[in-house]
Amino acid sequence: MPPTEGLTDGKAAIPLYQQVIDIIKNEINSGAYKAGARIPNEFELAESYKVGRVTVRRAIEELVQQGYLTKRQGKGTFVNAPKLKRKIRQKDDVQSFSDACRVNGMEPGARVISRKILPADSTEAQFFGVPVGTDLICVERVRTADGVPVMLENNIYVYEDNAYLSTAPLSNQSIFEFVHNRTGRTPAFTDPCTLEIACASPEVARLLAVPVGEPLFYMEAFFFDEQRRPFIIGRQRIVGSRYVFDI
Amino acid sequence: MPPTEGLTDGKAAIPLYQQVIDIIKNEINSGAYKAGARIPNEFELAESYKVGRVTVRRAIEELVQQGYLTKRQGKGTFVNAPKLKRKIRQKDDVQSFSDACRVNGMEPGARVISRKILPADSTEAQFFGVPVGTDLICVERVRTADGVPVMLENNIYVYEDNAYLSTAPLSNQSIFEFVHNRTGRTPAFTDPCTLEIACASPEVARLLAVPVGEPLFYMEAFFFDEQRRPFIIGRQRIVGSRYVFDI
Repeated sequence: MPPTEGLTDGKAAIPLYQQVIDIIKNEINSGAYKAGARIPNEFELAESYKVGRVTVRRAIEELVQQGYLTKRQGKGTFVNAPKLKRKIRQKDDVQSFSDACRVNGMEPGARVISRKILPADSTEAQFFGVPVGTDLICVERVRTADGVPVMLENNIYVYEDNAYLSTAPLSNQSIFEFVHNRTGRTPAFTDPCTLEIACASPEVARLLAVPVGEPLFYMEAFFFDEQRRPFIIGRQRIVGSRYVFDI
Repeated sequence: MPPTEGLTDGKAAIPLYQQVIDIIKNEINSGAYKAGARIPNEFELAESYKVGRVTVRRAIEELVQQGYLTKRQGKGTFVNAPKLKRKIRQKDDVQSFSDACRVNGMEPGARVISRKILPADSTEAQFFGVPVGTDLICVERVRTADGVPVMLENNIYVYEDNAYLSTAPLSNQSIFEFVHNRTGRTPAFTDPCTLEIACASPEVARLLAVPVGEPLFYMEAFFFDEQRRPFIIGRQRIVGSRYVFDI
């Protein structure tokens, strides 16, 4: 049971439900309430915090909204797995998905969905500095954190410079690291890197194990290497409920 | 009618539907197809581009997905208003919404929804370096671009230092500029600034003129001033279909 000392009486400046929210968040962040576990019901929480059920209900509703808890009809209220935090620093630092996972104490994974050779459209050709129609190789992978699908990643390279990607073993490893080992090139900064909201199409939803129409981040990044040469176009669809950008 | 010279024949490296997409995008970006206008129907486009209707249909579907066009049942296909582009630079540059609009050639607007004096919770108190329960003033405004609601903005200041905000005229102007003129302080960088996806509650949906459940960016930013003193907490809900972050 969580301690009740944090709760001041009804005259305090902080609303009671806010105090209950803070206590439950602390229980989750400290690991007292673990991811996937059911928390005590309204009656039990009201009793242990010495507050009314309406107060507990309001706190729980707020925590559901904030993504900490999920209510399951007839089963109770459960602690969500923590969202993945990925720090994107502009222009001078590029964090790979694998590194982002490790920083968050999660195990990165990757599954290759397709490798396609496609002709450069006008935007792609202009970025890479090649004629329209030049062969590009697009590697499509589902990226997972602790086994949970988090993003559908499309990384696009000039085929001629990176033909080895058509057969390389790209499951469960960083493609940035793999390409670096082959070519010595590292994605150093992005310009531009845009972030929009998209909704999951049926195919994307299936690959990411989310409902059709689920809101996703759509990130398009144009990566340059350390010599400021155009290098990679990344087009990622990222599950909104599993991701926080720290920009 | 758009020019057809851009279209190469069926043997070209670029798929025909991609060429049609590029042409229609150019027509939109150049203003030949204006925001809100109906574009020619499938038959007309197929004829003027000398391609099949299936090709035109695929191009239009892709442009709808990308947010350039909207289909209205029984009425035709219409050009969407351009998305607002806002450049957020991390740590050393903070762009106000008003400036972001002007850079995009759009007229910024603001409507005050509420001003509330609220007690600092533990996160807020820690950031501002004040005791929990200290009075904060939260100014809630709907921000518009060319009259269209784009974000619901909550800017939170320490009340004691910024009591003038409770009566200040804050419609249709930058709150950053207003506060600068009163205090000499400018938001200089954010740490942290997080970006998540949220869905519009009924109240938020009403204020932003979007359907309930519409996906929104939820941005939480902790602003410091030029002397690295904690200054403002911003909590913005931003309409996904009206916004692009350039990070």
